[in-house]
Amino acid sequence: MAGNANTSRHEKAEAWEKVKGMPKAMMEKVMNICVMTKEIAQDDPRKVIHSLKVGLSISLVSLFYFYQPLYENFGLSAMWAVMTVVVVFEFTVGATLGKGLNRTLATLTAGALGVGAHYLASLAGETAEPILIGFFVFLQAAIVSFIRFFPKMKARYDYGLLIFILTFSLISVSGFRDDEVLEMAHKRLSTIVIGGTACVMISIFVCPVWAGEELHYSIALNLDNLAHSLQEFINKHLKASEEGDSNKDNKSFMEGYKSVLNSKSSEDSLANFARWEPGHGKFKFRHPWDQYLKIGALSRQCAYRIEALINGHLNSPHIQGSSEIVGTIEEACIEMSVESSKALKELGLSIKNMMRLPSSNNHISESKAASKRLKALLQSSLKEQDTDLLSLIPAGTAASLLIDIVDCIQEIADSVNNLAALADFEDGDKSPKPPSSQSQALHCECAEPVPKIDSIV
Amino acid sequence: MAGNANTSRHEKAEAWEKVKGMPKAMMEKVMNICVMTKEIAQDDPRKVIHSLKVGLSISLVSLFYFYQPLYENFGLSAMWAVMTVVVVFEFTVGATLGKGLNRTLATLTAGALGVGAHYLASLAGETAEPILIGFFVFLQAAIVSFIRFFPKMKARYDYGLLIFILTFSLISVSGFRDDEVLEMAHKRLSTIVIGGTACVMISIFVCPVWAGEELHYSIALNLDNLAHSLQEFINKHLKASEEGDSNKDNKSFMEGYKSVLNSKSSEDSLANFARWEPGHGKFKFRHPWDQYLKIGALSRQCAYRIEALINGHLNSPHIQGSSEIVGTIEEACIEMSVESSKALKELGLSIKNMMRLPSSNNHISESKAASKRLKALLQSSLKEQDTDLLSLIPAGTAASLLIDIVDCIQEIADSVNNLAALADFEDGDKSPKPPSSQSQALHCECAEPVPKIDSIV
Repeated sequence: MAGNANTSRHEKAEAWEKVKGMPKAMMEKVMNICVMTKEIAQDDPRKVIHSLKVGLSISLVSLFYFYQPLYENFGLSAMWAVMTVVVVFEFTVGATLGKGLNRTLATLTAGALGVGAHYLASLAGETAEPILIGFFVFLQAAIVSFIRFFPKMKARYDYGLLIFILTFSLISVSGFRDDEVLEMAHKRLSTIVIGGTACVMISIFVCPVWAGEELHYSIALNLDNLAHSLQEFINKHLKASEEGDSNKDNKSFMEGYKSVLNSKSSEDSLANFARWEPGHGKFKFRHPWDQYLKIGALSRQCAYRIEALINGHLNSPHIQGSSEIVGTIEEACIEMSVESSKALKELGLSIKNMMRLPSSNNHISESKAASKRLKALLQSSLKEQDTDLLSLIPAGTAASLLIDIVDCIQEIADSVNNLAALADFEDGDKSPKPPSSQSQALHCECAEPVPKIDSIV
Repeated sequence: MAGNANTSRHEKAEAWEKVKGMPKAMMEKVMNICVMTKEIAQDDPRKVIHSLKVGLSISLVSLFYFYQPLYENFGLSAMWAVMTVVVVFEFTVGATLGKGLNRTLATLTAGALGVGAHYLASLAGETAEPILIGFFVFLQAAIVSFIRFFPKMKARYDYGLLIFILTFSLISVSGFRDDEVLEMAHKRLSTIVIGGTACVMISIFVCPVWAGEELHYSIALNLDNLAHSLQEFINKHLKASEEGDSNKDNKSFMEGYKSVLNSKSSEDSLANFARWEPGHGKFKFRHPWDQYLKIGALSRQCAYRIEALINGHLNSPHIQGSSEIVGTIEEACIEMSVESSKALKELGLSIKNMMRLPSSNNHISESKAASKRLKALLQSSLKEQDTDLLSLIPAGTAASLLIDIVDCIQEIADSVNNLAALADFEDGDKSPKPPSSQSQALHCECAEPVPKIDSIV
């Protein structure tokens, strides 16, 4: 009994603790939300502006209800204008325009066909009418739903096809009860046009966010991220072997290339939105957006190799290769990655500023020269050296991955040149710097004793 | 003059050719569409069934209009049921359920708040009412639009938040003109519930497509694809060196691992949908879907390395390494990849059949043993060999990438074991085969003269 009483007292005390703790837990949650809100707002203030724009345009369209003369014209159909604004307003201009146009065109064609179906069915007599309408609705819904699976249609017209099914069904079915089907279709179309126009106007003229610009800068940023990862790889790598301590904060510099690995879907959708956008700023109407996707795909190829390079070096136990030949291979590797990283940075800058920068070619040819030297070095005989193979493999692997990366960067450079030709980049007026001055400095740093490497095997 | 006449005749002839060609071009386009339709339908007949299901449920909901007693209850509000079906019906049960629940709950809460806002505003007097309503609408639209940027909310509740803005705006604004705002909210809610229920029922009971099942099989398929790529890499590789002809149809076997590279976004969305689904078949309600995402991420890691392995070997000029040591390294590589490929295949099969297969562990330990042998081999001195380093690097690179791949597969196996524990996989009753019998056969095959390798450098 005493035990029972004890446990029940204990339970009560626990429950009381929980109740006392609840406001604290709540407060913590609220604080977390506040912190997150602040972070998102600071990270990209355009998101706050977008939210205000949405509020503004819905309030604006609500005027249809509040202002008597407007209300007399449209009546309850004004609802469609509010709905259109809520559904169509997206973060970027391209997405808003695409959805608005899809919605308007789909409503137009489906409305016309719906009215047609209604008349056709009404000719068939009272009994057959609902059956015929039901059949039409079934048929179009099934066919259009299937068309939504076509990859090309899905990418650009998915929303339009959805609205097509919606409008056709609504118009032809409501027509059965409401004989003013033509007027209904007309009202639906005009309110949708008004709502869509309001969205598009506000989205274009109040602090616009262009999908094309987003794509442009994200591709440039990706190249910069890759450059940064390569640079950091070398930095940490040298530091690690100097300080004898390697695995501590190696993880932090991975983020750069990691964001590139999974960039495909967001790039694809941005390119799709960008195609709807009119010319803006430095971008013409038919800006070569496809070329950006090609550069994006090549960047991912490069990121896969950097992944193999970095993860291979970080995840494996250490075997210090310390023979002279390993040192020499590594020296060449470091030069290759420094030059590659610079080339990537320049290519990113070239896209960002829409300017041809001949210096990137210099860096690429420097890194190619380094890779040639490396090959020559490797061809020299090994016989006179006292080398065990195991210490050689990591350096060799890094070398061949870097050679792949250099090839990849050459392809990226070709694509960027293509883009420069297609989009008329300006000529960069910077005189090309003497390419090897900086790399020379780093070169000297590394030519000292022997930079040790964390090994793969 | 004669020249002019000639060119104009020529132009006419060209134009005529074009006109004559038009039906042909049209026919070709139509044929293309037919072929594509057939391909999509054959590739996944569930897509055809889905289209028919959509048609069926819209026709079913249209009965509200056609059947007098039903129409008397709801009147024109029946429109919302049709709309709900069109908008909510998705390919998988999870997506349909998620959208349906989102739409219903959002309509419920936003409807209640909208009615509240309407009454609050109507208390303020006639002049202040539209201003107050406008302010409320602006405020909620801006706040909820911002909440849509929160990553977690975006992933699961994006559609609900959109419908929240929509319903709140519609109810509170229409309330200004239509005093039966409570009835309106009630009708909207009940028609949406009816439409949503119809969708969910048809989606669950007529040939259901479960997002969870899709995720389950796609993860298993990905592992199988990786296994296939590794296997093909070895096959083509040996064949190529035997037939002396390598670059011809190397591209075909790449597709396997390539589909894994960009699988993240589809896996993420499938997992999000799967969380909405009730228990079905072998999957309980709280099946550990997150664990699948972990396995998916590790598969991509593995795919990145296979990419580096395959592309490095295919894209570079040939330097045949023909010394004995290269041959021995390659032999170990081949054994490692054969065993790795088998392990991946078994892991895929284990997930597919929800069964623990101990044989995969055998294959992993075999491949680990091979990698140990390789390391020992490499540690033996090189001095007595006549090797030039350049011919050694490609084999070495492949070796170290394969060692990485083996590590990666070990991690995948751990994750699969975790999944097996969490989801109560059955014990596979197959007695584990003697693990080295098959690999021995392949072993002997390759221990012959020297399997040559297309090199990286």
